[in-house]
Amino acid sequence: MSRLFLRTLRDDPADAEIDSHRLLVRTGAIRRVASGIYSWLPLGNRVLRNVEAIVREEMDAAGAQEVILPIAQPLELWERTGRDTAYGPQMFRLTDRKETGFALAPTAEEVITATVAGEYSSYRDLPVNLYQINWKYRDELRPRFGLLRSREFLMKDAYSFHVDVEDLRATYREMYEAYERIFARCGLTVRAVEAQAGEIGGDVNHEFMAVAPVGEDDFVWCTGCDYAANVEAAVRAAAPAAVAADVPAPADVDTPGAGAIADVAAQLGVEPGSLLKSIAFDCEGDLALALVPGDREINEFALRRAVAGRAVRLYSDEDFAAHPDLPKGFIGPHHPEVRLVVADPSVPAGAEWVVGANRVDAHTRHVVPGRDFRVDVVADLAVVATGDACPRCRGALRIDRGIEVGHVFQLGTKYSTALEAVYTDDAGGQHPMVMGCYGIGVSRIVAAVVEECSDEAGIAWPPGIAPYDVHLVVLPGRGDAAAGVLDAAERLYRDLQAAGVSVLFDDREVSPGVKFADADLLGMPVQITIGAKGLARGVAERKVRRTGDRDDLPIDGVVSALALR
Amino acid sequence: MSRLFLRTLRDDPADAEIDSHRLLVRTGAIRRVASGIYSWLPLGNRVLRNVEAIVREEMDAAGAQEVILPIAQPLELWERTGRDTAYGPQMFRLTDRKETGFALAPTAEEVITATVAGEYSSYRDLPVNLYQINWKYRDELRPRFGLLRSREFLMKDAYSFHVDVEDLRATYREMYEAYERIFARCGLTVRAVEAQAGEIGGDVNHEFMAVAPVGEDDFVWCTGCDYAANVEAAVRAAAPAAVAADVPAPADVDTPGAGAIADVAAQLGVEPGSLLKSIAFDCEGDLALALVPGDREINEFALRRAVAGRAVRLYSDEDFAAHPDLPKGFIGPHHPEVRLVVADPSVPAGAEWVVGANRVDAHTRHVVPGRDFRVDVVADLAVVATGDACPRCRGALRIDRGIEVGHVFQLGTKYSTALEAVYTDDAGGQHPMVMGCYGIGVSRIVAAVVEECSDEAGIAWPPGIAPYDVHLVVLPGRGDAAAGVLDAAERLYRDLQAAGVSVLFDDREVSPGVKFADADLLGMPVQITIGAKGLARGVAERKVRRTGDRDDLPIDGVVSALALR
Repeated sequence: MSRLFLRTLRDDPADAEIDSHRLLVRTGAIRRVASGIYSWLPLGNRVLRNVEAIVREEMDAAGAQEVILPIAQPLELWERTGRDTAYGPQMFRLTDRKETGFALAPTAEEVITATVAGEYSSYRDLPVNLYQINWKYRDELRPRFGLLRSREFLMKDAYSFHVDVEDLRATYREMYEAYERIFARCGLTVRAVEAQAGEIGGDVNHEFMAVAPVGEDDFVWCTGCDYAANVEAAVRAAAPAAVAADVPAPADVDTPGAGAIADVAAQLGVEPGSLLKSIAFDCEGDLALALVPGDREINEFALRRAVAGRAVRLYSDEDFAAHPDLPKGFIGPHHPEVRLVVADPSVPAGAEWVVGANRVDAHTRHVVPGRDFRVDVVADLAVVATGDACPRCRGALRIDRGIEVGHVFQLGTKYSTALEAVYTDDAGGQHPMVMGCYGIGVSRIVAAVVEECSDEAGIAWPPGIAPYDVHLVVLPGRGDAAAGVLDAAERLYRDLQAAGVSVLFDDREVSPGVKFADADLLGMPVQITIGAKGLARGVAERKVRRTGDRDDLPIDGVVSALALR
Repeated sequence: MSRLFLRTLRDDPADAEIDSHRLLVRTGAIRRVASGIYSWLPLGNRVLRNVEAIVREEMDAAGAQEVILPIAQPLELWERTGRDTAYGPQMFRLTDRKETGFALAPTAEEVITATVAGEYSSYRDLPVNLYQINWKYRDELRPRFGLLRSREFLMKDAYSFHVDVEDLRATYREMYEAYERIFARCGLTVRAVEAQAGEIGGDVNHEFMAVAPVGEDDFVWCTGCDYAANVEAAVRAAAPAAVAADVPAPADVDTPGAGAIADVAAQLGVEPGSLLKSIAFDCEGDLALALVPGDREINEFALRRAVAGRAVRLYSDEDFAAHPDLPKGFIGPHHPEVRLVVADPSVPAGAEWVVGANRVDAHTRHVVPGRDFRVDVVADLAVVATGDACPRCRGALRIDRGIEVGHVFQLGTKYSTALEAVYTDDAGGQHPMVMGCYGIGVSRIVAAVVEECSDEAGIAWPPGIAPYDVHLVVLPGRGDAAAGVLDAAERLYRDLQAAGVSVLFDDREVSPGVKFADADLLGMPVQITIGAKGLARGVAERKVRRTGDRDDLPIDGVVSALALR
């Protein structure tokens, strides 16, 4: 440490809002160079390299082949898939001296697809799974949270190519399992979450979310089984409302000024859950309604899934202005112009509801699906809430925040079609290759780990990715024993390294208090302290950073105790 | 190989002018993505990673500490040192969504100096030596030669910070020696050449040149000792012209139309070497002359060194137009307006020369330095030519072309002054840190190695950086023995890997000719072939790619023979 390029900081940096940002700066792991752009100093570099090595080992073991794709990519490739427009201002762009346009890679689907198209052409060539670990760029509108929303970040991106979806699924599964091993080795608690596709496009995909209150994304998970899903993708086992017998005929009731569920419920003295929310949307020109109980929110993504294949658009203020007979806040499913009704399973035929009366300041009581209006499609529409029943095991669902540290996609043929990555089958027919892609935020893992593995004293690095295995503290003191203590510590330093244990040796001439505080702050998994008192008894003290557990080890037994770990 | 992402090419790529470009493309190591920008496919990636690992090991062993600096660097830092202008259009620039300017790193002096300035402030902190291995960018006017003049390239750049030049020199020496080890381990023949500083600035520096006819730079080296220098920096042990006694008085002679040395020599019937070339230059407003024998060229860089500290400018046509009494091609050192004469040591006092007569179409014979004109400065001025004597050992100098694969600089305080990287000494005084910087072209090494280590059949990778240690060829044939041959090969494949030997296994169903041609093309150091005939005798054939030497190894002895290599 007397030679290490490191200055720990006692104070939190002013711009750090979350633990990982705060602690990575305080421990000298990273330093800000520009908004969302960081240098990695020696300790940070060691962690990042350790994560990188784990990712590489697991990808290689899973049969993926490493390549390196350019960071400066021809914009022309992005124009061929339309993704230059899709990324918009999130993509860093530049032109060279000849005015050729380039993008700084946010991902590399285009480059790799064009590359594979140039080399492979037969079903015999497939499958192939290629990956790289390289810097990526995203011009975030508001870079913040240190490494969590940075503009330059290290990413592992893999791309697989197949003859069909079945073959893709086998590789997808292998990648999924490799990801579970990677995150476990990094010491990170991660849930695989069924997700909606974003910019990347495609059908099936999973996000790997590290559970963290500072995460930017909500996700739903089951406390009873391994079900987990993005909020947009999550569904619940809906409890249908009770079916009532002998419901009176519908009857209008005045609800002056009550366009909101809570107001109607209050005026009528009923629970919000006994009202029916009727959300108007346009389905390819037709007026359609989506129905959920009054105490639920509608999930737009779920609505899109429910009418799969048809274009839908929730009614805007302009739409309502164009339909004066459809009074916002007072809509009911018995409206004569409604052409399509999609209802959540919690709205069964036969249950009784209060609905809008289709005129301002009025609602209709005693309305029964199936009796008073037709339901065309039953589909999960409600946004899931904590306490809802798991669709798989009926256990209690929870919503938590998470950091997306990985993502696997079944891409299909979007890129292979656009970039002509085709193969010839054994009968001579030509088909676009079926693709998957698999990303891991390598630098993001570092931040996510600190969020999970830190306390008020600092970081507690998991052994798999710690910058060093052991933090060796020497306290020579001022007495006659000082030289002997230093000798013993230096010998131990050499012996541990010879045994393959990496050691951060605090040989600085600073106070014991500073050394202990830095050891806890920097967070190597094991601390070994050698002082005059212990040495007189032939022992060194071991402290496990994570638990705080301490014990004495015979000086001669330290190497074997730690090397066998 | 049946699963490796690789298609070797039988034909040379159309744009490849040199062996390394041609062979790296044919062996599927790299693929062009844009002008001067390449993807590294699996075999190329393995070589690059091997070179990277050697560089990292030697840098770590030499006490340098690894960091990662951003590729996207704030332009503002470059403006503070003026290097944005110095690089000009060679630097890729971009702006983010907020119109902040960035450069794609060509090097990282600015970022690292600002970083060190932010952490260190005391003489006790120094020295420190930081390095990174990361992608760099240069927008070359004419990218060509594959990896040799590319626009995106992998570079190791190190920067050291010191209290004084003496301390810098110690680190400089360590880096110099680490570089020698790195290039040796990569299998590259390299000469350390004394060089002029370029864009980077500073005083002492060495270029590490891989000897190669396709190199872009000439350099001078001694066939008798380890002297080597850039053409600009090279000097010779000048053989002074003989001093003549009883030289007649100067006498003018008509040389009509003979402004060129060859013409004068022909007209007068003398050797060009007996004429004196008088090159006019401006030295801070004064007319000055540089003198070399008529058969030598003048080295402008040497002239600048000779008048160190004074601004010099060779006379242009405009200068001559402004001095009608100084007729270009007919200038002599006895001109009355000359204020400064700098002579090469080959022009000693007392020797006899033919010089210009300072009027058109005339020269003066019998002119003697010291007698007929004054020499103010004697300094090496002549461009060195093959056959000149080494300044150290008087052995024969040679000029060869080389590929610059490394460069070490003693930078001084240029960057620390501009970016306020100062330290406080033990008396409280403040000084700019003294810096060195040390670059290695990691991807360039790959190309330089192929230039040196290839033949008409393909590449012969040096063992230290080969993609795989062994190329295992199986020739099952069509007979009854086929299954047994395959079994033996697969067993050997597993056993070699278990012994830590990396193996490229050609298990493809292609002809022996294709397999052998690919093995020679791809260039693993050792080829092992298993066929039915050999197996019947219990042997496999070994071929050393570089020498072509072949021998038989007992099947059971292959692992021990290769693992001990």
